[in-house]
Amino acid sequence: MSRPDTADELRAHLDGRWAEIRDKGRHLLEELAELGAPSDEPYAGVWIEAQRVRTYEQLRVVAASGLPQLALPVEVGGGGDLGGAITGFEMLAMADLSLVVKTGVQYGLFGGAILHLGTARHHQQYLPDAMSLALPGCFAMTESGHGSDVASLRTTATYEPATQEFVITTPDDDARKDYIGNAARDGRVAVVFAQLIIADESRGVHAFVVPIRSPEGRPLPRVRIGDCGLKAGLGGVDNGRLWFDDVRIPRENLLNRYGNVAPDGAYSTPITSPNRRFFTMIGTLIQGRISIAAAGASATKVALTIAIRYAGVRRQFTAPGSDGEVVLLDYLTHQRRLLPALARTYALHFAQEELVSRAHEAFTISPDDVEFEAEDWDVAQHKDELRRKVEARAAAIKAVATWHATATIQACREACGGAGYLAENQLPQLRADTDVFTTFEGDNTVLLQLVARNLLTAFRSHLGELDMLSTIRFVADTAAGTLVENAAAHKLVQRLRDVGPGRDEDTGPLDRAWQVAMFEWRERHLLETAARRLRAAGASKDAFAAYTATQPHLLHLASAYADRLLLEAFMAGIETAPSSVRPLLDRTCDLFALSTIEADRAWFAEHGRLSAHRSKAVIAAVDARCRELRPQASLLVDGFGIPDACITAPIAQPR
Amino acid sequence: MSRPDTADELRAHLDGRWAEIRDKGRHLLEELAELGAPSDEPYAGVWIEAQRVRTYEQLRVVAASGLPQLALPVEVGGGGDLGGAITGFEMLAMADLSLVVKTGVQYGLFGGAILHLGTARHHQQYLPDAMSLALPGCFAMTESGHGSDVASLRTTATYEPATQEFVITTPDDDARKDYIGNAARDGRVAVVFAQLIIADESRGVHAFVVPIRSPEGRPLPRVRIGDCGLKAGLGGVDNGRLWFDDVRIPRENLLNRYGNVAPDGAYSTPITSPNRRFFTMIGTLIQGRISIAAAGASATKVALTIAIRYAGVRRQFTAPGSDGEVVLLDYLTHQRRLLPALARTYALHFAQEELVSRAHEAFTISPDDVEFEAEDWDVAQHKDELRRKVEARAAAIKAVATWHATATIQACREACGGAGYLAENQLPQLRADTDVFTTFEGDNTVLLQLVARNLLTAFRSHLGELDMLSTIRFVADTAAGTLVENAAAHKLVQRLRDVGPGRDEDTGPLDRAWQVAMFEWRERHLLETAARRLRAAGASKDAFAAYTATQPHLLHLASAYADRLLLEAFMAGIETAPSSVRPLLDRTCDLFALSTIEADRAWFAEHGRLSAHRSKAVIAAVDARCRELRPQASLLVDGFGIPDACITAPIAQPR
Repeated sequence: MSRPDTADELRAHLDGRWAEIRDKGRHLLEELAELGAPSDEPYAGVWIEAQRVRTYEQLRVVAASGLPQLALPVEVGGGGDLGGAITGFEMLAMADLSLVVKTGVQYGLFGGAILHLGTARHHQQYLPDAMSLALPGCFAMTESGHGSDVASLRTTATYEPATQEFVITTPDDDARKDYIGNAARDGRVAVVFAQLIIADESRGVHAFVVPIRSPEGRPLPRVRIGDCGLKAGLGGVDNGRLWFDDVRIPRENLLNRYGNVAPDGAYSTPITSPNRRFFTMIGTLIQGRISIAAAGASATKVALTIAIRYAGVRRQFTAPGSDGEVVLLDYLTHQRRLLPALARTYALHFAQEELVSRAHEAFTISPDDVEFEAEDWDVAQHKDELRRKVEARAAAIKAVATWHATATIQACREACGGAGYLAENQLPQLRADTDVFTTFEGDNTVLLQLVARNLLTAFRSHLGELDMLSTIRFVADTAAGTLVENAAAHKLVQRLRDVGPGRDEDTGPLDRAWQVAMFEWRERHLLETAARRLRAAGASKDAFAAYTATQPHLLHLASAYADRLLLEAFMAGIETAPSSVRPLLDRTCDLFALSTIEADRAWFAEHGRLSAHRSKAVIAAVDARCRELRPQASLLVDGFGIPDACITAPIAQPR
Repeated sequence: MSRPDTADELRAHLDGRWAEIRDKGRHLLEELAELGAPSDEPYAGVWIEAQRVRTYEQLRVVAASGLPQLALPVEVGGGGDLGGAITGFEMLAMADLSLVVKTGVQYGLFGGAILHLGTARHHQQYLPDAMSLALPGCFAMTESGHGSDVASLRTTATYEPATQEFVITTPDDDARKDYIGNAARDGRVAVVFAQLIIADESRGVHAFVVPIRSPEGRPLPRVRIGDCGLKAGLGGVDNGRLWFDDVRIPRENLLNRYGNVAPDGAYSTPITSPNRRFFTMIGTLIQGRISIAAAGASATKVALTIAIRYAGVRRQFTAPGSDGEVVLLDYLTHQRRLLPALARTYALHFAQEELVSRAHEAFTISPDDVEFEAEDWDVAQHKDELRRKVEARAAAIKAVATWHATATIQACREACGGAGYLAENQLPQLRADTDVFTTFEGDNTVLLQLVARNLLTAFRSHLGELDMLSTIRFVADTAAGTLVENAAAHKLVQRLRDVGPGRDEDTGPLDRAWQVAMFEWRERHLLETAARRLRAAGASKDAFAAYTATQPHLLHLASAYADRLLLEAFMAGIETAPSSVRPLLDRTCDLFALSTIEADRAWFAEHGRLSAHRSKAVIAAVDARCRELRPQASLLVDGFGIPDACITAPIAQPR
C-alpha cells in the first residue's frame, strides 16, 4: 500500500522551491473554508427565484401566442403542425434560452410524452390543460445514476391487481429523478419513466402520469422534491429532484400506447420485442432533440451577429504604413475565428430546415394514430421506417449543432475581448445557457455512437454476411454511385460528376465536385474500416477493450456522416435560392466545405487522399475565401433575420 | 444601394417552408421585449452586491495572512519574495477566483504599479495602507476604445506649471477607463494611465495616482464612476468605469520612476527612447501576467480533480459479455477527453514553476533599485536583458496556460454530463471565472504575436543583414546544436543525442529524443519561414494585406515556442524527481509530447516530417499511453495537493 506515500512524494516534488508558501496557502484555504456558509448564499436563492418568476411570466405570453401548441393535434385544440412548432422554438431561442427550455419541458417533453406515449383518454384529460398552462408538468426520465442509459433506470412501478393501482418507488438515492425541469417550483404532475413490474416480472421502461403537487403548489404525500439550485445557466428553469416513497396511482395513469395492463394484470403490447418497444417509445420524443438543435443554432446566430457587427467597427492597432487604426475584421486571424463558423452555421441552417421537414412528414400525429387499440397497430406502424431514418439524422445534427454552438459562442466571446465578458453584451448568457445542450436530450458522445451503429447496421444489412468479397463490392458500388440521399443534392452531384471532377490534382480545391468527393470518400472509408475493426473486435479475447479502442473511429464516422448531410443540404439550399444571393451562398458553401476538410486534413493525408501540396492549397483557399467573404459578413448575419429587439448588446448597436 | 434588398432576399430564402411561423415568431419576440424591464433586474443587483461583500470579507482574511504582501520589499513592510507572492496567488486560485482577482488588483496591479512605477516617496506614502487594505486601489489602464493597444490610450494628464498640478481628462466616452477592478464599489484611489502633456507636447503614457472616492466611499467631485454590472463570472470583483472631468492632482502624484516633471515643467527620463520607456514601464507589470497563468493552472487542476474522481466511480452502460456497468474512465473516449489535458497540466506546472523562479531573480526589487535618481539609472538597468527574456516567456506561457484552462475546464464539464452543469459541482464557476483569463493581462492572440516578434528579433540580430546565405547558416547551426535554453533540459537533450535518435523511422514515437527533435524542428522551421515571409511582406505593395496573411503563421510559431518550453521544463522536472515517481512522470511526459505532436500532425505531414505510417503510430501511441495512465489518473490528481476544503463538489466526494 505505497499509494498514499507516492502521492505525497509526487506532491512534495510538485511543490518545489516555494513548498513552504504552498503549505501556508493550504492552511489559508482551510481557514477561508471555515468562515462558514458564504454570506451570499441566501441572496443566491432570491436571485434564482427572481429568474424563475420572470421566465414563468414570459411563458404565459408565449402560451397565449399559440406557437408552442402547434405541435399538438387539431383534435385536442392544437395546430397539427409539428414543423411549425419546432420552427417556433427556433425563433424563441433568439430571445431567451431559459424560456425556450421551459417551453420545451411543458410542450415538447411533458405534452409530447402525453401525446406520443398516451392514448385518446390521456389526450383529452391532460392536453388542453397542458396547453393553457393550467397544468404545468414534468418529464421525469433521468435518474442520478442513469442519464444516457435510459433502459437501465431503476425507479419501479409495481402493479397491484387488488387495488388496480401502480406503486411508484424510488429504491435509493441513485434512482432519484434528477435535473427534472419544472420539478423544483412549478410542476403539478410528472410523466415518470419506471420499470413496469407485474407479478414480479419486469416489462421494461414505461411512462406513468404521477401527480406531485397540490393545486396550491404543496408537494403531495410520499413525494419528496429537491431543488438542483444554481446552474451554469438557464437560471429561469426550475430543475429539481424527485423521490417517490411508494406513491399509488390508478391503472389508467399508465401511458399505454405501446404497452397496456388489463385490470387483472395481463400485459399486452403491439410491439412484442422489448428492445424494439423501448426504442420506439424513446423515438417518439425526437421533437425535443430537434428543437434543441434548432435552439443551439439560433443562439449561435445571435452570437455571430453580435461578434461580427462589433468586429466591423472596433479598431485596434495601426496598420504599417497607415495613420488609421485597423478594424478587427480586417485581420486574417479575426476572420479565421468567425467566418468559417458563420459558414458552418449556414450549412446547419439548411440541414436543420430539411430535418424539420422530414420529421414533420414522419412524426405528425394523425387521428388514425391516436385511437390506439392493439389490433390497429399496423395502421400506426406505416411510418416506422421513415422514422428510424429521421432519428439517426436528428441525432447526428443535434450533436454537431450543439458542439458548434458551444465552440462558436465561445469564439465570439473571445473575439469581443473584455466586452464579450460583460452580461450587457449577451454573450455570457448565450454561452452559459447553451452549454448543457451538448449533454441533454442525449449526450453528444452517446448520440454519435448510436448514429455510427445505425450506419453500420445499414451497411451490414447491405452486406449480408459481411464477407470480404461483398465488402469490396459495396465499396466499389458506392464509389461508382453516391451516398447522397437528398434528392436536390443528388441531382447536383450528378451534374458535377458529368462535367467530371478529374483527378484530385487536376482540380482546384474550389471545385465543388472535389469537395463532395472528399466528404463522401471519408464517410465511406470510415464506415468500411469501422465494420472491419468491429468484426475483429467481436472475435477478440477482450471484447470490451477491443470495442472501446474503436470508439474514436465510430465518433469520427458519425461526424463525417453529419458533415456530409450538411454539405448536401447547403448545396440544395443554393439550388433553390434566388439568383441575387446564389453567388454569395456558393462562396459561403466553399468556406464551409474547405474549412471542414482543413480541420480533418491530417486524416485525409494519413489515408493517402491529400498530398502535402494539396493540403497547403486547402489552407490557402480557406484564407482566400475568408478574405473574399469579409465584406459580405454583415450581409450574411443580416440574412438570419434576428429582430432588433433580440440584439440588445451595446457593442452591437449601429454607431 | 441594393444591399438592404439582398439581405431581405437572403432572409426570405432562409425563412423557407415555415416563413409564416418565423414572422409570427418575430412579432412574439418584439412583444416579449415590450414586457419592459425584466422583473429580475433589481434582484440581479442585490445578488451582485452580496457576492462583492463576500469577496471583500474573504480579502480581509487573505490580507491578514501576509501572503499577498510577500511581493513588496522588506523596507516598506513586505516580504521581499516575488516568487512566494505568485505562488500564494496560485494557491488562492484553488479556492475562489473572484478572491484571487480582487487580491491581484489590490496587491499585484495597484500595489505593483506604485512599487514599480513610483519612487521611494510613493512607496512610503501608499504601500503600507495598500498592504493593510486601508487604501483600496484601482489600476486604471484599459479604456473602452483601447484595450490591447495601451500606447494609444487617449486619457490626458496636462501639466500646469502655475499650480504645479496635472489635469486628468477623459476626452470622450471611448476614452473612459473600462473594466477597472475595485472601481465600482471599493476603490479609493486609482493609478491612472494617461498621455502626459507638457506645454502642448505629448510625452507618452505615464501613470498617476488619482483619488476617486472620499473616505466615506462617495465619488469625488469631477470623477464619474459607472458599474460594469453582471459578468460571465468573477461576480465578487467590482469592475467599473471611470470618467475624469478635468480632475486636478498635485505634481507629486506622477509615478516618476521612468519619467519626471520638474516644477517648471521640465521633463527628464532615464530612458530617452519613448518606445523603450513605454515597454520598460509595461514590462514591470509582469507579475499580474504570471499570476493569471498560475491561477488558470490551479483552476484547471481543481476541475481535473473533480472530473477524474467522478469518472473513476460513475458507471454507464454494460460492457459486452459482462453483467457490470462500465466505469466512465474505462472508455477510451473518456480517457481521451481528460488524460492528455492532465499531462499538459503537468507540463504547465513545471514550466510555470521555472518561470516564477526566473521572474523572481529578474524582478525582485532591491533597495538599490528604488532610490531613483536619473544618474543612478545604470544601477537599475543591470537586469534589463534578463527581464526581456522573462517577459517573452511569461507572455507565451500565460497564453497557452489560459487557453488550456478554458478548454480543459469545458472538457471536464462535458465529461461530467448534467452533473457538471450544476453549481454545486464547482465546474460552472471555474469555467465562468477563468473565461476572461484569455483576454485580460494581455489578450492571448496579441501576446502570441508579441512573442513571435521577439523570437524574430532575436533571429534577425543573429542574422545581421538577414541575407539568404546567413539564413541558411543559422538554420544549419541550430539544427546541429539546439534551441534548448533550460540548463537541466539541455544536458538531458544532449545525453539523448549522444545515444543517438537515429532516423525518424528507426525510433518509436516513445523515444524522447525523437519527441524533442520534433518540437525543436517545428519551432525552427516556423521561425525561419516566418522571417522569410515577413521579409517578402515588407517588400509587398499592400504591406498590411501581406502582414495579416502571416498572422496565423506567427501564432503557430509562438505556440510551438511555448510547447518547447513546456517539454523542456517537464523533462527537467523529471530529472530532479524522486525515483518513486519518475517512471510515472516519464509516461505522463510521453502523453504530453505525443498528444501535442498528434494535434499538429497535419502540419508535420505537410512539411515532410511525418509519414502517414508514422502519423498513425503517434495516434496509436497516445491511445496506448492513455490506457497505461488510466490506473494512475487519480494518483496524478492527488499529486496536485489540493486541500479537501477546496473540493466541495458532491460528485467528487469519496464514496
